[in-house]
Amino acid sequence: MGISGSDTSGLTIGEASEREALRRIFPRLPESSATLVGPGDDAAVLAAPDGRFVVTTDMMVHGPDFRLAWSGAVDLGWKAAATNLSDVAAMGAVPTALVVAIAAPPETPIAWLEGVADGFRMACEALQPGCGVVGGDLSVSATLTFAVTAFGDLQGREPVLRSGARVGDVVAVSGALGEAATGLQLLFAEAVDAAGEPDPSRFAAVLAAHPGPIGAQLRPRPPIADGPLAAIAGATAMLDLSDGLALDARRVAEASGVAIDLDTTTLGPDVRTALTGGEDHGLFAAFPPEVPLPGGFRRVGVVREGAGLLVDGVRFDERGGWDPYLEWDGGRG
Amino acid sequence: MGISGSDTSGLTIGEASEREALRRIFPRLPESSATLVGPGDDAAVLAAPDGRFVVTTDMMVHGPDFRLAWSGAVDLGWKAAATNLSDVAAMGAVPTALVVAIAAPPETPIAWLEGVADGFRMACEALQPGCGVVGGDLSVSATLTFAVTAFGDLQGREPVLRSGARVGDVVAVSGALGEAATGLQLLFAEAVDAAGEPDPSRFAAVLAAHPGPIGAQLRPRPPIADGPLAAIAGATAMLDLSDGLALDARRVAEASGVAIDLDTTTLGPDVRTALTGGEDHGLFAAFPPEVPLPGGFRRVGVVREGAGLLVDGVRFDERGGWDPYLEWDGGRG
Repeated sequence: MGISGSDTSGLTIGEASEREALRRIFPRLPESSATLVGPGDDAAVLAAPDGRFVVTTDMMVHGPDFRLAWSGAVDLGWKAAATNLSDVAAMGAVPTALVVAIAAPPETPIAWLEGVADGFRMACEALQPGCGVVGGDLSVSATLTFAVTAFGDLQGREPVLRSGARVGDVVAVSGALGEAATGLQLLFAEAVDAAGEPDPSRFAAVLAAHPGPIGAQLRPRPPIADGPLAAIAGATAMLDLSDGLALDARRVAEASGVAIDLDTTTLGPDVRTALTGGEDHGLFAAFPPEVPLPGGFRRVGVVREGAGLLVDGVRFDERGGWDPYLEWDGGRG
Repeated sequence: MGISGSDTSGLTIGEASEREALRRIFPRLPESSATLVGPGDDAAVLAAPDGRFVVTTDMMVHGPDFRLAWSGAVDLGWKAAATNLSDVAAMGAVPTALVVAIAAPPETPIAWLEGVADGFRMACEALQPGCGVVGGDLSVSATLTFAVTAFGDLQGREPVLRSGARVGDVVAVSGALGEAATGLQLLFAEAVDAAGEPDPSRFAAVLAAHPGPIGAQLRPRPPIADGPLAAIAGATAMLDLSDGLALDARRVAEASGVAIDLDTTTLGPDVRTALTGGEDHGLFAAFPPEVPLPGGFRRVGVVREGAGLLVDGVRFDERGGWDPYLEWDGGRG
């Protein structure tokens, strides 16, 4: 498989001009209802109705962040959109738009990049209709790289920071815990060849046997609408669950100057993966105890006096999550 | 030289955690006066006082866009900031903030990334005080890659698009023409070894002999303030000069449905390089004929009925500029 697998007959970005490549890609991208000036000029102009905007940026790099034996073009566009929308939602904002920079090897078929554009469109349509791509950049590189910047509208509300949790608050989660990490474990365990290298032919069987976890890993569906709902309900703190519940809950505890105590009876059968598995892209939030939990939020613990993370009342110092700085072995596949 | 040249004794990003790396880098970055919520949460929150914001994104990739034999860490931070600020200014907006995603090889010293941060700070201080970095992302990659997204404030004015030039307008340029391209030609001609590979030891002599063009190439100083000045003066169209005057003037002509006729007596002694050299990062704008040209703008031609680009009244179809899709040979150095 790999980047040229889907269409080796068509024009590559090394053969086409940037203009020709963009001419084919842009019509497939989702439109943003916040657009005042769209793609095609030096810059775009977007509406920021309440006089502020939320902005986040994130890269996905071939090797540490994805393998082409497992992720197709549509998957990569979807995931790059979804993970950035989740960061916007975790501020309590409604995602409005994305700008997308892609650097790809010269041999990349333009048809493959059309698939990436389709992934962005499908993710925006599924997760936040009205959010779209308003600009971008296309470069050549030896390493396939996506850099997405996402914007959101706070609709007049204050942003929900990680620093506002208060003693007595309930902490709650929206979205599945550990499923994306289980998917990644399955891929590295079963979708590899005898040498341990990612293998597209084994991938199909793993996907068929475990569509839930593999889907959570390759095409995450963050509960975007629950971000603004949490803000409206009065959430005191909120964070996108990207690095595992334990690490992300500890971040909220540290930023808020409190302790957070998680209750393992709420974390499902695989408590360890729920605590330490990364890339959930759900939402972790603290709410005053009297507030009915909105949307898909469910209680997973409480905020206590003290510092750091407790699990069932006992201090929990495992790091969990995924730090590509410490863990990437140089493999790509 | 190369990425590890300046400090091989210190911690690399492959050894440090992302948190430790960011802890060292963030204090060196320039602050934005538009910041409402700064780095450290899921997303930043920025002021957009007139209810809109301008946004542009651009990547710089090791190989097609820069060589480490010639560009140091400070140069790269500077250029990544400057080129994005120029795109914002070309809409007539005042640049307010940047988000910066960097992917670097694991062996990159954190001290080297501190130099990149210094370059961002120095460029913002020199080109647009009050503009700063409000967020970012740090990843590992086999290919050093910068992805910058820049924001601007239109201050209540309409954006100046490339499509508004009218017959009878004067076309004008702010900033040097061809100097950055001359610098690049000098580097490829003289700052290489016998095999034609970029050579840091020869670079020093080339820089000493030609500080103007080499500086224009490695640390461009776009006339940022002239963007808003042009908008205030009533510019009908404007574009950042990134791909050479000929190509960029033709883009304005096509978008505006007019012909643009450039006058070679205004283009200095090296007319060909002024017309076709890329990476000027000056501003090209059209003004109604009765308007006194603002700031550093000087007349280079007129808008006529017709289509496409004329030079001294004769149709000019050379492409000019630099298209990495067509021209990158895979070299890095």
